[in-house]
Amino acid sequence: MESYSTSELNKVIRGSNRATYDTKTIHTIIDAGFIGHVSYVFEGTPICIPMAYGKIGDKIYLHGSLKNRMLSSILENEQMSMTIMHLDGLVLARSGFHHSVNYRSVTLFGKATKVEDDKLKTEALKCVIDQMIPNRWDSLRPMTEKELNATLVIEIAIETASAKVRADGAIDEKSDLELPVWAGVIPIKQVAKAPISDQLLEDTVQIPAHVKDYYVKNKN
Amino acid sequence: MESYSTSELNKVIRGSNRATYDTKTIHTIIDAGFIGHVSYVFEGTPICIPMAYGKIGDKIYLHGSLKNRMLSSILENEQMSMTIMHLDGLVLARSGFHHSVNYRSVTLFGKATKVEDDKLKTEALKCVIDQMIPNRWDSLRPMTEKELNATLVIEIAIETASAKVRADGAIDEKSDLELPVWAGVIPIKQVAKAPISDQLLEDTVQIPAHVKDYYVKNKN
Repeated sequence: MESYSTSELNKVIRGSNRATYDTKTIHTIIDAGFIGHVSYVFEGTPICIPMAYGKIGDKIYLHGSLKNRMLSSILENEQMSMTIMHLDGLVLARSGFHHSVNYRSVTLFGKATKVEDDKLKTEALKCVIDQMIPNRWDSLRPMTEKELNATLVIEIAIETASAKVRADGAIDEKSDLELPVWAGVIPIKQVAKAPISDQLLEDTVQIPAHVKDYYVKNKN
Repeated sequence: MESYSTSELNKVIRGSNRATYDTKTIHTIIDAGFIGHVSYVFEGTPICIPMAYGKIGDKIYLHGSLKNRMLSSILENEQMSMTIMHLDGLVLARSGFHHSVNYRSVTLFGKATKVEDDKLKTEALKCVIDQMIPNRWDSLRPMTEKELNATLVIEIAIETASAKVRADGAIDEKSDLELPVWAGVIPIKQVAKAPISDQLLEDTVQIPAHVKDYYVKNKN
């Protein structure tokens, strides 16, 4: 599938020149993060909550406590949605009207189902941890049965999605170009600082390759 | 008011030890950002959209096109909510179960109303721009009447809110402390890179103080 189908649900109306339904673009944006905002409705009020996610193929995995209100709600609802956004820059134009931001965002839609199978549950939790920091899972002790039983894992098969991407300079009115106003872009990036070892760490435990790799890749 | 009132709507159940309703904490978290996720419902599906915001006192301002589906929806609904989150670190524990993130987040609730008065509309747009980068607005040409008429401005009087803050190391099972697994925190920060001047900028226009200040304050 090269692109997601569009309907009234996911079709981008405002700023449609920045919209795409291209599958590869959408998955690249999802893969670039590990926290998205999941929406639900509580007694008539829509609310969204930031959640860590993992992805295997076209399926998104969320996890939480068995009693998590949001997760319970999306399991009950016919359809859920989730938004992932990366901020890439402040776009400072010569007029307030044309100020903007550079960003990559995806809103995906699907139905939430509970993962019951312990093997898939474990794989899903692995992909959530490795989405946060690649290759982490294999350095950890295995999950206990008690932990697995205390964890609710939700699978969302992506049914459709849309992305919006802005990666451009300031776009001003022609009549404003000669104004003595500075215009341009301030790039924004999410970076990692040097890892801080736990105070209770055994002296013999060194910072492992996957943590060093993450830091080196994300420090600038 | 020292803290927001709690009800079923905003009371944090999961991880309640990390929750606060303290007004000052909540406003500090809001002030530290300029993009939040606003939730709405489209034909039964809850969706959230990242939006720039400004704040004057206890009021949040959003803006968009007159035909913005999300803004129209929150104007119709009795109550809206918005979530603002700052990611501060990856918390890597000795077990997958205790992995977490450090963060500051706020979910605020209120009723959206349309701002009709041109003076307040202009003040609201100023505060949205200055929330993104302080002292920007005063360097710009004034809004035109045409621009003002093409812009929908929404005011949300914050009725209640909750914050969750995690700023801690890994919290592991005692029985895991002697495992040969590295644990600790990788701090995460959103930083600014050097400003890039617009290609069409007049030669005489230098990078102004408010842009330099923003860069210096946020580059590390």
